[in-house]
Amino acid sequence: MARRGTNLDRVGDFNDAVVLDAIRRSEQLSRVELAEATGLSGQAISNIARRLLDAGLVREAGRLRGAGLGKPRTLLELEPTGRYAVGVHLDPSVVTVVLLDLTGEVVARRVVDQYADDPDPLIDGIAKTIEDVVVASGAPRERVTGVGIAAPGPIDVERGVVVDPPNLSTWHLVPLRDQLQERTGLPIILDKDVTAAASAERWAGQGGSFVFFYLGTGVGAGLVIGDEVIRGASSNVGEIGHVIVDPDGPVCFCGRRGCVGEASQPRYLVAQAVRAGVLAGGIDLDDRLAVEAAFAELCASAGEPGAARDIVTTLAARIAKVVEDIANLLDLDRVVFGGPHWQQLAPVLGDAVRTALDGRFLLQAVHPFEVTGTALGADVGAIGAASLVLDRTFSPNPSLAGER
Amino acid sequence: MARRGTNLDRVGDFNDAVVLDAIRRSEQLSRVELAEATGLSGQAISNIARRLLDAGLVREAGRLRGAGLGKPRTLLELEPTGRYAVGVHLDPSVVTVVLLDLTGEVVARRVVDQYADDPDPLIDGIAKTIEDVVVASGAPRERVTGVGIAAPGPIDVERGVVVDPPNLSTWHLVPLRDQLQERTGLPIILDKDVTAAASAERWAGQGGSFVFFYLGTGVGAGLVIGDEVIRGASSNVGEIGHVIVDPDGPVCFCGRRGCVGEASQPRYLVAQAVRAGVLAGGIDLDDRLAVEAAFAELCASAGEPGAARDIVTTLAARIAKVVEDIANLLDLDRVVFGGPHWQQLAPVLGDAVRTALDGRFLLQAVHPFEVTGTALGADVGAIGAASLVLDRTFSPNPSLAGER
Repeated sequence: MARRGTNLDRVGDFNDAVVLDAIRRSEQLSRVELAEATGLSGQAISNIARRLLDAGLVREAGRLRGAGLGKPRTLLELEPTGRYAVGVHLDPSVVTVVLLDLTGEVVARRVVDQYADDPDPLIDGIAKTIEDVVVASGAPRERVTGVGIAAPGPIDVERGVVVDPPNLSTWHLVPLRDQLQERTGLPIILDKDVTAAASAERWAGQGGSFVFFYLGTGVGAGLVIGDEVIRGASSNVGEIGHVIVDPDGPVCFCGRRGCVGEASQPRYLVAQAVRAGVLAGGIDLDDRLAVEAAFAELCASAGEPGAARDIVTTLAARIAKVVEDIANLLDLDRVVFGGPHWQQLAPVLGDAVRTALDGRFLLQAVHPFEVTGTALGADVGAIGAASLVLDRTFSPNPSLAGER
Repeated sequence: MARRGTNLDRVGDFNDAVVLDAIRRSEQLSRVELAEATGLSGQAISNIARRLLDAGLVREAGRLRGAGLGKPRTLLELEPTGRYAVGVHLDPSVVTVVLLDLTGEVVARRVVDQYADDPDPLIDGIAKTIEDVVVASGAPRERVTGVGIAAPGPIDVERGVVVDPPNLSTWHLVPLRDQLQERTGLPIILDKDVTAAASAERWAGQGGSFVFFYLGTGVGAGLVIGDEVIRGASSNVGEIGHVIVDPDGPVCFCGRRGCVGEASQPRYLVAQAVRAGVLAGGIDLDDRLAVEAAFAELCASAGEPGAARDIVTTLAARIAKVVEDIANLLDLDRVVFGGPHWQQLAPVLGDAVRTALDGRFLLQAVHPFEVTGTALGADVGAIGAASLVLDRTFSPNPSLAGER
């Protein structure tokens, strides 16, 4: 693919985005500081700042006075109400909708009620919830720039299609993007759930190279390398369920032994806990809600030494093995854990993963490896979906320099 | 890290590189075609072409005539002798030096004789071989733009240091870059061996998203995603030796069972072949040359059905498992095999990997996955090292758009 050059008439858009992004990252900056941060001339900064003020994207935020500064400098900051973005997280068990303002703050949140397995009523429900969220927030509709959807893979981004999500048995080749666009009239961006979450972490300030590790009914990985979100050939990165983490682990449906997806299934862990006498018997392993409740009980019991703690520690060692493989393959700085099971597992998992990785991260001689959890809570997928919209609308993307 | 904007006085360099890269990729292009391919104006192309001609980087290559074309169009192509780059592959058993011309052709090649384990005499030998290669090629020394070194990891790129290469027991924190720069007076780029090889494949035309899979005494992975070489946090991507590929595999020195590094060691495979009666006993497993010779014999016997074929097929399934893990994690289009053992294993390995991956590449519903081998032969590491120099000197790098 040949790159495109940068014609002069196109530079403006790119530099507007560069300046807007610099303001976002530093929260408040004067025009002089902006010139220093971006390498643009003072005259260019003045023109761009004027355009951004006129467009309602930034606002003036007082003046900076100080010895040696000369005349007081006006600070610029994002205008939070300047634009909004909707984020939808299509999880197999719950669909969450959030509205973010331009600074990335959540200003409204709803869960889609009348949850349905069938695509048509569920997409109706999502469209209605989007309207509800916008109305509830009081945001002027014309400032809502788009909807991001975080969906389980595999997805077909070019066609906007959800291909064959696990745990959504009635979904097959659903043209989610176009159907939601028809119902809402808003531009829609479809991306993979883990990639959306990784994008949210990056937008919230996680820099460098890291894996966002999703812990839920399944496991998955979102990737940021050198500050860039990595999407792979078809935006389907992060399928890690069949990585072998323990030669003595359980047999997986794929026929192999010790795959991390099987070994981290709540169903498998709950069955283990029943056998170990940690949980009472009689749990219906085909009832997802019953299994989730039993899993929560198991996690709660893991605080004290004993069989429950042992089960969770073994799980931690197995998860640590995938993290180790990914960190060594991609030379990463950090793992950021998230997803519905992270909150429950965090008290034991964080330390156990740290211990299990010690000496096994092969690049320790060059740089450290950090184990951390999301600061964005359970809505990281939905927030990530909205941040895709903010990201695409306002961030300078070098590969777009000549394409806008 | 804040991005920098693109001031007008800096656009020239970036666009020169864009045009040069477009010519390289298409071999020959007219100015009209260049304007179409790059999105730059005809006037900009004329100015850039003049500068590139004056700098001796491109030359005119006849005229294109055709119905409807109007007046004949002059074609531009790279001037092969316009610049040269040296590549050094520091392999634990052989050090290869090549000289590439601007088109990426190998114009001279030497192996460093008087191979020494100790860094000092070996670096002397490399410097001398670089001089020999330049002299042998007849390239004017002032057109040699730099030296790329492909070294085993971990490396410290910022300090230009080889940290602790496996199989080079006397090398510890060797400041290879500065020592070679002192001896040659040329700019030096240090990068990891597998990354250099992946870069060579990209330079030779492999596009999209792929893993370069190195098969030698150890295994390693170089990564290209979306046409970009991926280096990770510290240019140390590709450590895959401890990925578990077979719960029934051999015990690794790390204490786990079934790591791919151990399971693909010639030493282990030769011992297996002796036990199976494929190779005669009495091989000294601590003698690397004897093991390599026995391994070659094993590979040669694998053409026919039998115990030798079974050993290589098991190896193939294990290698396929890492490829599967990497392809699913990173959503790749392709694996490109290379390294000293690839040529020996290719007749069995290629098909066996294809078979083993069938149904296990999880994104098959979205796009195919291709299994292929390097077209660059055994020198892919050295060629890759030189291509790093060509790449950095002549390719447009969007992240550099505002930094030059």
